[in-house]
Amino acid sequence: MRIAFDLHGGDYAPHSVIEGVSIAAKNWRDTTFVLIGQDPDLVPPGLDHIEFHQVTEHIDPDDEPVRSVRRKKDSSIVVGCQMVKNKEVDAFISAGNTGALMAAGLFYTGRIKGIERPALAPVFPTLSGKGILVLDVGANPEAKPEHLRQYAIMGSIYASKVLGFEEPRVGLLNIGTETGKGIQLTKEAFKLLEKESSIRFIGNTEARDVLYGPCEVLVCDGFSGNILLKNAEGVAKAIFEKLKSEFTRTWINKLAALILSPGLKRFKKEMDYKEHGGAPLLGLAGPIIKAHGSSDAKAIFNAARQARLFVTQQVTEQMKQEFAKTKE
Amino acid sequence: MRIAFDLHGGDYAPHSVIEGVSIAAKNWRDTTFVLIGQDPDLVPPGLDHIEFHQVTEHIDPDDEPVRSVRRKKDSSIVVGCQMVKNKEVDAFISAGNTGALMAAGLFYTGRIKGIERPALAPVFPTLSGKGILVLDVGANPEAKPEHLRQYAIMGSIYASKVLGFEEPRVGLLNIGTETGKGIQLTKEAFKLLEKESSIRFIGNTEARDVLYGPCEVLVCDGFSGNILLKNAEGVAKAIFEKLKSEFTRTWINKLAALILSPGLKRFKKEMDYKEHGGAPLLGLAGPIIKAHGSSDAKAIFNAARQARLFVTQQVTEQMKQEFAKTKE
Repeated sequence: MRIAFDLHGGDYAPHSVIEGVSIAAKNWRDTTFVLIGQDPDLVPPGLDHIEFHQVTEHIDPDDEPVRSVRRKKDSSIVVGCQMVKNKEVDAFISAGNTGALMAAGLFYTGRIKGIERPALAPVFPTLSGKGILVLDVGANPEAKPEHLRQYAIMGSIYASKVLGFEEPRVGLLNIGTETGKGIQLTKEAFKLLEKESSIRFIGNTEARDVLYGPCEVLVCDGFSGNILLKNAEGVAKAIFEKLKSEFTRTWINKLAALILSPGLKRFKKEMDYKEHGGAPLLGLAGPIIKAHGSSDAKAIFNAARQARLFVTQQVTEQMKQEFAKTKE
Repeated sequence: MRIAFDLHGGDYAPHSVIEGVSIAAKNWRDTTFVLIGQDPDLVPPGLDHIEFHQVTEHIDPDDEPVRSVRRKKDSSIVVGCQMVKNKEVDAFISAGNTGALMAAGLFYTGRIKGIERPALAPVFPTLSGKGILVLDVGANPEAKPEHLRQYAIMGSIYASKVLGFEEPRVGLLNIGTETGKGIQLTKEAFKLLEKESSIRFIGNTEARDVLYGPCEVLVCDGFSGNILLKNAEGVAKAIFEKLKSEFTRTWINKLAALILSPGLKRFKKEMDYKEHGGAPLLGLAGPIIKAHGSSDAKAIFNAARQARLFVTQQVTEQMKQEFAKTKE
């Protein structure tokens, strides 16, 4: 198996990528890791099962996605997506510009036949620690009901094959739990999901319940999903910041916080998106994974594990078969 | 001034309402409080500045909103909204069925001329403690760009008159901060807000920044706003629950938590929606306020304070003038 990594993506790249990949290469001897980047000197020589693939440019975090992937054809993101398309690698992972990765995936890797829109599908942490797959969180901000039906099918396959959920429950993000709630989009999507025999639809799910894990797969339009994701991140971050300032306010508080610190750290880690690997772009013709922008070596290692499962469990093949079936 | 309260709304009603109103009546001697309910025996006799207004029915939390306000014409919610319309009272507050209150406000109190849709506008807590007015959070799930422009104007008037923000900044909830981001709705609303001279528009605001108070007024469609509100509530609730279980896990943890407890309680209170009063239904022909379902006596008292400001600051009049102007 060959897994490619973007050396230019993420806050701690390229070192986080090189370190994470080095551990992964020692762990999985059947896999070759391809590091795509501009500077060959960055990669220590003589690393086992690690190759370097040189490109001449890269896409910056602030680059306009569509324009940059059209212009920077020899950038790590574009080349990685092309290598998946051409089967030079089995999967590609980047912690870089999310919009650019989504655009490059769409333009250069392409969609699975029958799938109208790919979806970005991160795992949200839940209190139980199991997590919940949410899609879409922004690949397709203006979704149609049929897109949500397709997300439900793709999400169910991925959740069962990669996340290990047996017969995952599918919820529809909505502003009430009763049937008939919400906007035109959710009302029509509800009807499609109800009829869809390949999934286990449990109905509407409210945003306040997400962390309690009411289902394993949550479908929504990209605009709402993005708001849900960023709001959850923002609220958790703000609360932990405030706690930290409270815990260091006086010396006695510091002492008390020291006692509670192992449990708090464990909890903070459970609530950390990075622990759950990257977000796959489901619906593309091959595995493309968006790792979190703040990925450290461990997050990169987790993303490698996830990419391996994506490949060995033949998720793309399964989706191809499922959507070929629905076309008949 | 006369302020009416729904005796049948909220988890702790009618006692929370009676207690809260009793304190309010002692505090503001210029105000008469009208308690609308089915059972006159509930209200202790001889209370100064407190009247009882009998009705024959009430709307339950699970009643279908539109149907119930059409059928239960002598319910506390419908009668309260009618009394505002007929100027028998200056304001009406209910902690009951949100959908029913919105429907009754629309049908029985009516809109201000020129306003296409009323908006439910709660104050979200922010880390600074100042709060941020978010509208709409669900009165109108399927909003048009023009609705968002109207929310911005109504929100700015309310934020300056009742919340005391001078020249409040207005943000547009979106999935990126750059101009041109988002869906058709946000792109078109952005253009309208940019042109609107009566507000101080600062551009797009991301969901992750809301708790940091990037603006004083945040406008969004009711579907997204509802997801934002419920997700923020859910995440905060889940984190505090988890902290509580961590803090009581061992006796030494309990001891440490005891030391930190005053600060944590203060913080939890700051993050509590109830502390910021109820959510006004802006755009109606008179002040209608939705108090939180879990309102206690203090929350009811806070809602009374808010209703008084709504009336004395002539918020409805200001809105009428503003929208009469834009029609010319």
